[in-house]
Amino acid sequence: MSIKFEVLHVCKQSGARLGRLTTPHGVFETPFFMPVGTQATVKTLEPKEIKEVSEGLILGNTYHLWLQPGEDLVEKHGGIRGFMNWDGSVLTDSGGYQVFSLTEMRKITEEGVHFKHHKNGSALFMSPEDSIKVQEKLGADIIMSFDECPPPYETYEYMKDSVDRTLRWAKRGKDALSTDQALFGIVQGGLNEELRKYCAEKLIEMDFPGYSIGGLSVGETKEEMYQMTKYLNPILPFDKPRYLMGVGAPDDLVENVIHGIDMFDCVLPTRIARHGTALTTEGKIVIKNQTYEHDMKPLDPYLKTKVSKYTRSYIRHLFKAEEMLGMRLVTYQNLAYLKHLMQEIRTAIKEDRLLDFKEEMKKKTNYFKSR
Amino acid sequence: MSIKFEVLHVCKQSGARLGRLTTPHGVFETPFFMPVGTQATVKTLEPKEIKEVSEGLILGNTYHLWLQPGEDLVEKHGGIRGFMNWDGSVLTDSGGYQVFSLTEMRKITEEGVHFKHHKNGSALFMSPEDSIKVQEKLGADIIMSFDECPPPYETYEYMKDSVDRTLRWAKRGKDALSTDQALFGIVQGGLNEELRKYCAEKLIEMDFPGYSIGGLSVGETKEEMYQMTKYLNPILPFDKPRYLMGVGAPDDLVENVIHGIDMFDCVLPTRIARHGTALTTEGKIVIKNQTYEHDMKPLDPYLKTKVSKYTRSYIRHLFKAEEMLGMRLVTYQNLAYLKHLMQEIRTAIKEDRLLDFKEEMKKKTNYFKSR
Repeated sequence: MSIKFEVLHVCKQSGARLGRLTTPHGVFETPFFMPVGTQATVKTLEPKEIKEVSEGLILGNTYHLWLQPGEDLVEKHGGIRGFMNWDGSVLTDSGGYQVFSLTEMRKITEEGVHFKHHKNGSALFMSPEDSIKVQEKLGADIIMSFDECPPPYETYEYMKDSVDRTLRWAKRGKDALSTDQALFGIVQGGLNEELRKYCAEKLIEMDFPGYSIGGLSVGETKEEMYQMTKYLNPILPFDKPRYLMGVGAPDDLVENVIHGIDMFDCVLPTRIARHGTALTTEGKIVIKNQTYEHDMKPLDPYLKTKVSKYTRSYIRHLFKAEEMLGMRLVTYQNLAYLKHLMQEIRTAIKEDRLLDFKEEMKKKTNYFKSR
Repeated sequence: MSIKFEVLHVCKQSGARLGRLTTPHGVFETPFFMPVGTQATVKTLEPKEIKEVSEGLILGNTYHLWLQPGEDLVEKHGGIRGFMNWDGSVLTDSGGYQVFSLTEMRKITEEGVHFKHHKNGSALFMSPEDSIKVQEKLGADIIMSFDECPPPYETYEYMKDSVDRTLRWAKRGKDALSTDQALFGIVQGGLNEELRKYCAEKLIEMDFPGYSIGGLSVGETKEEMYQMTKYLNPILPFDKPRYLMGVGAPDDLVENVIHGIDMFDCVLPTRIARHGTALTTEGKIVIKNQTYEHDMKPLDPYLKTKVSKYTRSYIRHLFKAEEMLGMRLVTYQNLAYLKHLMQEIRTAIKEDRLLDFKEEMKKKTNYFKSR
């Protein structure tokens, strides 16, 4: 097994876990958040900067890299790490989520999925074995089973069939794997607890080194999401890492850590950054707003980073003038804030006060107010 | 006078000048190239990076900053330097070039120019005094007279009237100046040597601390441009800096240094970077081309910078995938190359071998081949 995971402490107040994940490229305290580097780049940033604003792990997208530049070229560079000059750890998704969210004209068969390229419309096919083969070449430390990610409000019958197929695909992926990369199983089942439990138990029987929770943050309410991680918390093995896919809003990070999640990724902090929304220790800020025109304070007055030397007024100007540096500075800020938040969360777990921390954060920020 | 200039050496082979320009924010060997920071940002780069790939001087555009965010907000930050966090030196243009190249529906009067905003079409007016007042607030070390920049092939009659008005405007700007910023006069006159000489001599009578050559690189041939700088070389005062505005192609830098130019600026290196054209010690490279798909060499194998750690294959991927990091890396490379080129040029002047250097560069690169 190429990764190692230990739970170091459980918060007496909240039940949240503090752990340590060891991969071939680093030792990382959990829970942590991973920035998304879809196309072998965390948009606008150089690897040195990514290192500064992450724990040292990033996510790469199998679907995108398979299409451009192709997994062979990435392999020629020694995988994603060599390709983009990243000396930290990498996790790849399976491509399943993109196949089901970005593409049209999908036809799901037992063998795999036929679909059309999300940009040029050409006919494509991916099977569980294909996904593993591509991920082997991309060379991440942690990789994912190829799964179907259906909309959360599908019928029970559809969901049951889908979960069974996802389970058969998980088995086929596991059988196809020829490297010592850590392959995680993905728990699906929509918002149905019975199906989620069934899926989790079948995956646990197959004994994966870690378990992902997929199919959340795809249109359901926040309460439905939290209810499901809470429900799965006692079902998933205590001694294996749990990875909640595609979740990264500050309030969601806190709530799901309380329900036993160890790993997160999400495009949210980097995507909203490019539209001028900053995540700060004071809360969310839409920097383009007129109110910041003459604001001489730094973007985040309480988090010291290299972005601190610019005024809000200047960063607003960059967005008004459609300058890329604006996107770059807010991207840096948003990831720096999430890194800081996860550090605070880990400290609160160690000190058995994560519920208190959540209440303080509710008072200090606007992150919990959108519900 | 807030700047100081000395000629340190004249190349015995070419007549090119090696000099030293001292501003309130640094001492700079001439000839040098200034990156363009139109909207108080050199596109995609942070000031720390600009420092690495420049001599420490950049150009800011008065027209753009006057419109967004407005000179008062920039002044509130202590000028362009404070606004963008740049601790080097700044030069601003007068806005004249943009008024005549970007806008429509211009009406030139003795008082100034009426024109429409280049984006929203609103009615605007700028006089020579306005330009100086805006530039005072932008706070650059070196500023420019407000001039008319007519197309190079206008009639003699038009050009004569235009030059006379530009001279009257130069005088008005000089009279309006209330700071110790170094105001340069701008030599206009299109491709007519008699008018250029007339304009230069009248400006020299007014005794500016430096002289710019405007109205070149605006559609004429390279030979016409070189002929004009050659012609003006003995006319302009030996002991004052000469600034050729808007010129930055590698071959043009070498040729015009031979004709006595000390200072250059141009958007070319940063603009072509964003479209994937790299300037390297081996010549111009269009990185998007298929030929670089599997190229494992760095963008510039002979110039060691932070971009050297990425392969051409990776940078090509970034452009194919429309990733901003690609623009950022090639912008850095192009400015690093021009900095390196100007250093080589200064060394060749010191060694009295600039013509030999030009011949070597002609053999080693494709920069002289486009003619």
